[in-house]
Amino acid sequence: MAYELYYWAEIQGRGEFVRLALEEAGAPYVDVAREKGSGALMKLWQSKSLETPSFAPPFLVSGKRVIGQTANILAYLGDRHGLAPKAEAARMWVNQIQLTIADFALEIHDTHHPIGAAFYYEDQKPESERRAEWFRGERLGRFLGWFEAILARNPKGSKYLVGAKLSYVDLSLFQLVEGLRYAFPKAMAKAEKDVPNVIALHDRVAARPRIKAYLASDRRIPFNQHGLFRHYPELDG
Amino acid sequence: MAYELYYWAEIQGRGEFVRLALEEAGAPYVDVAREKGSGALMKLWQSKSLETPSFAPPFLVSGKRVIGQTANILAYLGDRHGLAPKAEAARMWVNQIQLTIADFALEIHDTHHPIGAAFYYEDQKPESERRAEWFRGERLGRFLGWFEAILARNPKGSKYLVGAKLSYVDLSLFQLVEGLRYAFPKAMAKAEKDVPNVIALHDRVAARPRIKAYLASDRRIPFNQHGLFRHYPELDG
Repeated sequence: MAYELYYWAEIQGRGEFVRLALEEAGAPYVDVAREKGSGALMKLWQSKSLETPSFAPPFLVSGKRVIGQTANILAYLGDRHGLAPKAEAARMWVNQIQLTIADFALEIHDTHHPIGAAFYYEDQKPESERRAEWFRGERLGRFLGWFEAILARNPKGSKYLVGAKLSYVDLSLFQLVEGLRYAFPKAMAKAEKDVPNVIALHDRVAARPRIKAYLASDRRIPFNQHGLFRHYPELDG
Repeated sequence: MAYELYYWAEIQGRGEFVRLALEEAGAPYVDVAREKGSGALMKLWQSKSLETPSFAPPFLVSGKRVIGQTANILAYLGDRHGLAPKAEAARMWVNQIQLTIADFALEIHDTHHPIGAAFYYEDQKPESERRAEWFRGERLGRFLGWFEAILARNPKGSKYLVGAKLSYVDLSLFQLVEGLRYAFPKAMAKAEKDVPNVIALHDRVAARPRIKAYLASDRRIPFNQHGLFRHYPELDG
């Protein structure tokens, strides 16, 4: 039975980390809001009879289970589709990396929404510029450098973040690089010079047949000014 | 062998979710920075030979393993000390709840640091007031209401968040209530009226012998103006 992914129809956002895993797995899925409208998303999300409600999308329906929180969904899919190691210590290390990707993604989001998601960007522009300056100066290189160090220290080589095989965190790191290139083209061009292993991994993921086909399809929503990654030139220094 | 917890010596912060689990488990642990100084924390954190470095504290040393990210550490401890269900679906539901607790905790933190952790509160006061107003008006009740709904819908009764037995998320929710009472006494007094099951769970956790002993000990760092939860009256409405 096909999975059902519940996430906003208009953006890549956090749902994209899940979409990439489903696509790489070749797993059939219904992207519910895109295929059936946002009402279908709202209906299940707000259902008062769900025993495992999600605070926010994305969530995934798999048979009778309803699973929320991006990293948690990915752990579930990783186990089932060979996108995570089997050994407990390595599996938890993958989870730790994904949680740090989530932290990084939120800091990227907060460059354009420091005062809160309830306000338009236009209503928090000076604050965004201040936060983005700190992000570009202190956080971007530090996060990317952490991934670079992990790749460099991987005892199985620097092709993948964990072990000698692709896992879902490699897909998520690919997505971060894509998004950062869109949102911060100037800052990212500079930052990339210090993280060759991260960029090589990005390219390796982009060349995988299923990912390549997905990126070329209309299932991939283009980056836009509503998602996690937004391009405001004034935030790019 | 005792666990080693690596976290800042001066604050409860995110490390407190781990401390509470260790205390409830009765597991011996060394609170490294508190007992051996911050140098010991920095040394392992910045070690260039670690294969599983953490982006930020807390991290836990268990034998040869070094495990980071609060929710990941708790999943590890939960499995080993009977603080999480054994069944996969329930275990992942616990993890989903903990990840939402982490989201909530970060939003609480951001009420006093919307522009970034690099700046003093005094340098982002108007921004904090704006963010805190949104937090009190829109987010506090929404998050607490989500926990209340989970308790109300738990098919095994409303004593615990998941199943009929304490798990680490109950300890973490206790900590959120404690922290919110410290940081937002006025807003929290109002909000509590709508979430009786959450407050009853808080009280149940507070009365557990090991937690009670821990809270009365000097191992429990008092709340202060350096941690995740800070009391600034102007942010409390």
